[in-house]
Amino acid sequence: MRIALDAMGGDHGPGPNVAGALRAVAAAPDLTVVLVGDPVQLQPLLAEASPAGPIEIVPASEVVGMHEKPSEALRKKPDSSIAKCWQLLAGQKVDGLVSAGNTGAVVAGGLFLKRFLKGVRRPGIAALMPTVKGKTVILDVGANVWPKPLHLLHYGVMGSEYARAMLGIENPKIGLMNVGEEEGKGHDLIQKTYDLFRSGPLKERFFGNVEGRDVHKGVVDVIVTDGFVGNVVLKHAEGVFEFLMGLVGQEVIGALTTERDIAKKAMHGLISKFHHSAAGGAPLLGIDGICMICHGASDERAITNAVLTAAQDVRIGLNARITAAIAALPAITEDE
Amino acid sequence: MRIALDAMGGDHGPGPNVAGALRAVAAAPDLTVVLVGDPVQLQPLLAEASPAGPIEIVPASEVVGMHEKPSEALRKKPDSSIAKCWQLLAGQKVDGLVSAGNTGAVVAGGLFLKRFLKGVRRPGIAALMPTVKGKTVILDVGANVWPKPLHLLHYGVMGSEYARAMLGIENPKIGLMNVGEEEGKGHDLIQKTYDLFRSGPLKERFFGNVEGRDVHKGVVDVIVTDGFVGNVVLKHAEGVFEFLMGLVGQEVIGALTTERDIAKKAMHGLISKFHHSAAGGAPLLGIDGICMICHGASDERAITNAVLTAAQDVRIGLNARITAAIAALPAITEDE
Repeated sequence: MRIALDAMGGDHGPGPNVAGALRAVAAAPDLTVVLVGDPVQLQPLLAEASPAGPIEIVPASEVVGMHEKPSEALRKKPDSSIAKCWQLLAGQKVDGLVSAGNTGAVVAGGLFLKRFLKGVRRPGIAALMPTVKGKTVILDVGANVWPKPLHLLHYGVMGSEYARAMLGIENPKIGLMNVGEEEGKGHDLIQKTYDLFRSGPLKERFFGNVEGRDVHKGVVDVIVTDGFVGNVVLKHAEGVFEFLMGLVGQEVIGALTTERDIAKKAMHGLISKFHHSAAGGAPLLGIDGICMICHGASDERAITNAVLTAAQDVRIGLNARITAAIAALPAITEDE
Repeated sequence: MRIALDAMGGDHGPGPNVAGALRAVAAAPDLTVVLVGDPVQLQPLLAEASPAGPIEIVPASEVVGMHEKPSEALRKKPDSSIAKCWQLLAGQKVDGLVSAGNTGAVVAGGLFLKRFLKGVRRPGIAALMPTVKGKTVILDVGANVWPKPLHLLHYGVMGSEYARAMLGIENPKIGLMNVGEEEGKGHDLIQKTYDLFRSGPLKERFFGNVEGRDVHKGVVDVIVTDGFVGNVVLKHAEGVFEFLMGLVGQEVIGALTTERDIAKKAMHGLISKFHHSAAGGAPLLGIDGICMICHGASDERAITNAVLTAAQDVRIGLNARITAAIAALPAITEDE
């Protein structure tokens, strides 16, 4: 099992990536991590540690900045760590890749290579959202901001396989993000997508529309949405969480005296549980090979979790399950 | 000052509407509330109370249900309380209207009458979001799910006037909701809108893109977005709030013993402060006359606040300010 790690990606450079790789190989005996990046920076970091498992370095002389325009950056920097990760995946030198670098560039690399799973029209990023009942898969959260109805139907299929694999839900319920519960709500794309789910091959599993307030209620196991809305929701959850935890710290914990430390400890438990590093990364589903996208602010824990999750997705054959589920769909005439 | 109140609107029927009207007229001596609805239900509720100010009843024999299709319902029920409220506004019998009824039907009533302010192409609903620095105006949150760039530019203008009036911010900063900070992010509509803000008449006040995680940071005073994204964000904020307050109650307050009641009281303070009833309603900006849209679950406090805010918007001449600001825009060639 070989996972390429974009060692230059993220806001904090190679440090958390190398540290995360070290922890990942220590945790999974069948795992080799391939660090992709500048050997001059990576070798000393590895030399300091004594890796408990195999870590290799594949040189990449360039880095795509976090604020560069994705496709332009990839074109100008063919030897960037992101481009190199994709080349390793395309050449089947690795089973998966993990990057905390420029998300747009990671996605663009996948779109450019066009190594999609058979039958999949467009890949989508799936994230896990916490709910009162456990977790919900939401996709797409940023790969495809202007999808077609068929893309969204495929997201329903891929999200269901992901929910089965990650959450152990045998028959996941699918909801469509909308501005109201009733049929007929939303714009043209969403209305057409609703019809495709309601009368199509996934109708048994289709719950109907869900609203923003339902995301954390666990009413469905998979929420399908376009990459614009999904991205806003994912980041908004992070923003509201930070805002509210600040307020709770000030107003609730600030009101206490003798039990303040107990409350602080409990709140830090919550913060740690819901911090993005607990999930590690979000997979770009629909790619031939596993591609795990991490938050730019990823720390060591996030990288470790992302690498281990990527390895797990390979082990369980997530892609074979997706390919089979897509192949089982009847032919759908597209409304382009 | 006369405000029509859809007395039949909302999840709880006439009760909270009548109670809210009673409190509103008690608080504002210049205010007359016109209750629009079924006199058989309304008269006993009024007779029980002794109104501290003028309350009138205008009969409406029909009610649009919360789950009816908006335009169909309005067509089939010309004597519904929502349709009657709009007729009163169109006939200048009232200065504004307030409804906790079917939001789609309230908006559809406004679009159907087409009594827009001069120069405004499409009305939009503006909501106030709490931030670490105070409040941010976000619009549209559901009237226009498929806007054009010029609509969004107008939302920037109207949102700025609303921020001036409601938040006392002289030169509001405008942000465009997007999937990343950098120019060039997002789909075609958003890219065109970005260019219109960046190079157009509002360029001095345009901050650039904002992301979901920025909503509650107070980085801008006005967030412009399409009605689909805005609606999802508004409802998602409500959902995350409910989810997190539940967790804080369980995990943080549940960990306490001697100071549990102090913490509970502080948390209820937070819940009350951020509950939707504190804001009361969200105005449909761009309409000739004030139209305030309330949450379906509005209680007495929400209705009172919505009626008082509508009255205040009339008093300060919000619409005259919007009309002047729209008139001050240079002619813009539309890309339809």
